[in-house]
Amino acid sequence: MSDGAAGSTLSESVTTAPPGELLMAKFMDVHDGFFGVTAEQLNAAHDADLKIEGEEGVHFERAWLDPEAGKVFCLSTGPSKEAVMRVHERAGHPTSQVFELTAEV
Amino acid sequence: MSDGAAGSTLSESVTTAPPGELLMAKFMDVHDGFFGVTAEQLNAAHDADLKIEGEEGVHFERAWLDPEAGKVFCLSTGPSKEAVMRVHERAGHPTSQVFELTAEV
Repeated sequence: MSDGAAGSTLSESVTTAPPGELLMAKFMDVHDGFFGVTAEQLNAAHDADLKIEGEEGVHFERAWLDPEAGKVFCLSTGPSKEAVMRVHERAGHPTSQVFELTAEV
Repeated sequence: MSDGAAGSTLSESVTTAPPGELLMAKFMDVHDGFFGVTAEQLNAAHDADLKIEGEEGVHFERAWLDPEAGKVFCLSTGPSKEAVMRVHERAGHPTSQVFELTAEV
């Protein structure tokens, strides 16, 4: 409710978006089958993404692991879903489940 | 009054975790069917969670929307999956897809 003028600190060259809407492309992707993966293995997979993400203009901000369900969720910014997919594929953990986020809280 | 180090605010029953592992229960949940939802509607749904979450010891930190795929992802902390589910159900947007996160980057 109180999200009035929060966006005004962003660059003036960027078109103003309504409160809560994103000014650049942001993505959540989901991986299945990561059963029993450790925190160290998650870090290693994330590092593999970070190492090459710049070549695609992507940045992986966060990743979360549920090793019991075998799920990994990754939050990223980048030019397109396809660019996100390419980084993950080249890093050895491809997924087709990439969602473009138009709003966040 | 408080003379402890930073980590001592957590329960003493919680053992120290290796780097990257979480010391309290954290969850990612997923909602389907949110097609065409706006940023304002996401905010309203999130506010409905925030209003009652304290009664279950849950806190919803973030939420992300893909209105084209109809997906919402919510990141929360709390005592259990069931507590997270109860808040969402009482707020009017139930989901059974709640994942307990054991590590994050």
